[in-house]
Amino acid sequence: MEGHNRLRNQGPRVVAIGGGHGLSTLLRGLKLHTGNITAIVTVADDGGGSGMLRQDLGMPPPGDIRSCMEALANTEPLMEQLLGYRFTDGSLSGQAFGNLLLAALNGISGSFDEAVEKMSQVLAITGRILPVTNANVALRATFENGAQVVGESKIAAFKKAQDCRISRVELLPGHAPALPATLEAISQADLILLGPGSLYTSVIPNLLVDGISEAIRASDAPRVYIANIMTQDGETEGMTLSEHISALLVHGGEGLINLCLANSAPVRPGLLERYQEEGAEPILIDRDRVKRLGVELVERPLSSETSDYARHSVERLGKAVMDLYQERAETRVF
Amino acid sequence: MEGHNRLRNQGPRVVAIGGGHGLSTLLRGLKLHTGNITAIVTVADDGGGSGMLRQDLGMPPPGDIRSCMEALANTEPLMEQLLGYRFTDGSLSGQAFGNLLLAALNGISGSFDEAVEKMSQVLAITGRILPVTNANVALRATFENGAQVVGESKIAAFKKAQDCRISRVELLPGHAPALPATLEAISQADLILLGPGSLYTSVIPNLLVDGISEAIRASDAPRVYIANIMTQDGETEGMTLSEHISALLVHGGEGLINLCLANSAPVRPGLLERYQEEGAEPILIDRDRVKRLGVELVERPLSSETSDYARHSVERLGKAVMDLYQERAETRVF
Repeated sequence: MEGHNRLRNQGPRVVAIGGGHGLSTLLRGLKLHTGNITAIVTVADDGGGSGMLRQDLGMPPPGDIRSCMEALANTEPLMEQLLGYRFTDGSLSGQAFGNLLLAALNGISGSFDEAVEKMSQVLAITGRILPVTNANVALRATFENGAQVVGESKIAAFKKAQDCRISRVELLPGHAPALPATLEAISQADLILLGPGSLYTSVIPNLLVDGISEAIRASDAPRVYIANIMTQDGETEGMTLSEHISALLVHGGEGLINLCLANSAPVRPGLLERYQEEGAEPILIDRDRVKRLGVELVERPLSSETSDYARHSVERLGKAVMDLYQERAETRVF
Repeated sequence: MEGHNRLRNQGPRVVAIGGGHGLSTLLRGLKLHTGNITAIVTVADDGGGSGMLRQDLGMPPPGDIRSCMEALANTEPLMEQLLGYRFTDGSLSGQAFGNLLLAALNGISGSFDEAVEKMSQVLAITGRILPVTNANVALRATFENGAQVVGESKIAAFKKAQDCRISRVELLPGHAPALPATLEAISQADLILLGPGSLYTSVIPNLLVDGISEAIRASDAPRVYIANIMTQDGETEGMTLSEHISALLVHGGEGLINLCLANSAPVRPGLLERYQEEGAEPILIDRDRVKRLGVELVERPLSSETSDYARHSVERLGKAVMDLYQERAETRVF
């Protein structure tokens, strides 16, 4: 146990950038190997319980932060159970208790990042969680037909109505300053991870905050995009792996990433059919095009063998990322 | 410090019965002297944030329990600040975070008292807090003119409209079983305290739960009513001390209490005038009538010398109660 703790304290400084379920899966995996984790989390969500609190209280959306807190919390089981508890009745129906905790902390704090810091203390988390910005931002998507929609939660339905791809996403207002601590964490990182998660609504919004893309590009550390296993309904239907990477480079600039970690394990047939019904399929790994984008491709079996969804396995993902880091650190490729 | 803890562990087993601000003041005072505290708390409230949660979630009202938790919590200052935080905007406006915490715990628990027990664990409280019953109860008041009103939060306004005194209060449904742990705590108590607090809406509702009055009357311990300093607008206007005690005996049975601790310090003139505006005044201590009710009267200076209200001083009240207990224990009057 002591050896395990020593390992974690001596682990590489990992920065994981994203949001949603994908980021929390990654954090759970990383936590098994290192305590030096900084999660940089999107604050562009405007749907569900987060959207309600955002509108009601004028605070940044708490949901993505809360998922990360759940992933990194070291508190007693009761507090973990509480954090994820969702009210089932009345005006609180569907609201997660963890969101309300963050909202109350925001009420007694001078800023959102201070509230996030206090929540980290209360939950004794491994590592550190930072909102990418304290600014109140909305996400606007422009489609290939020129149509636009504002609001992260509206993008998927709008995309289906337009029946064409997303061309780009932007933040409104256009300039949101990064939290200084995020830039510092990126500049000191031994390893920078983008994704997995919703490409346009969880990963890319972080790249749009002033200073974030520049800081990533300026890093000497391996900068790895962890690709999703499946395309996503209402977001990335029909997109190949190189098209995912291209979207990142278009929004984050040339040289943003130099590695891509993709799943090599086949998706189970039963799962495949269920996903097909909603137009999602395994992302096609078009190796030549990825290479032409200047990105090295690493393929590993990453998917869960037990989940009812085609999702990353916490253990496989954590181990694959750390193995990749060790290989590169030993051979000094970077 | 060790001596202080030893004292607290060896302190008398005190049961404090009531609700609202009065009970939490008493608990803060008791906590300075003993750790053997059991608070038995009313669950008849139906107004404000408690009423909202009660209606929305079908749970007992959390507000009185939360006040006691705040009084007895030993957690870090941040958690204490959080507990009492009230949201200021939107649909959560006026709601205390501590109420939402108890509501979420209730959602993951099999019963309300289990949720209260879990909240006590999370907050590492001194002593123990018990809802008087797990039953969903409403309070009905009958006035001297025969009029009736249902709902604790409606009693004060209704009383003003009737312009006559409350004759009695009852629970609906008529029979609510006491939590077994409350009866056990009362039977093992070295000291039983009723009040201070709203006579008809915080103290007496506890006496209406099946088994509570009987358990108090069966105790050999000193059974002390801690009287309020002032009459209360919409509840006890014009009532003397003996009339307060008589209301307790009418609802809780002959011999319910054998001691009454009343404030002997004069209320400051400035405060007096402000209270007069809303028809409240210092409770007249009619000593002969109190004696005729078979209750021994102990008068001590109990009021706060610094508060902007005519309220009990935490320190004075705690010390007076414990001094009274020590005197009686030494002279073996009980």
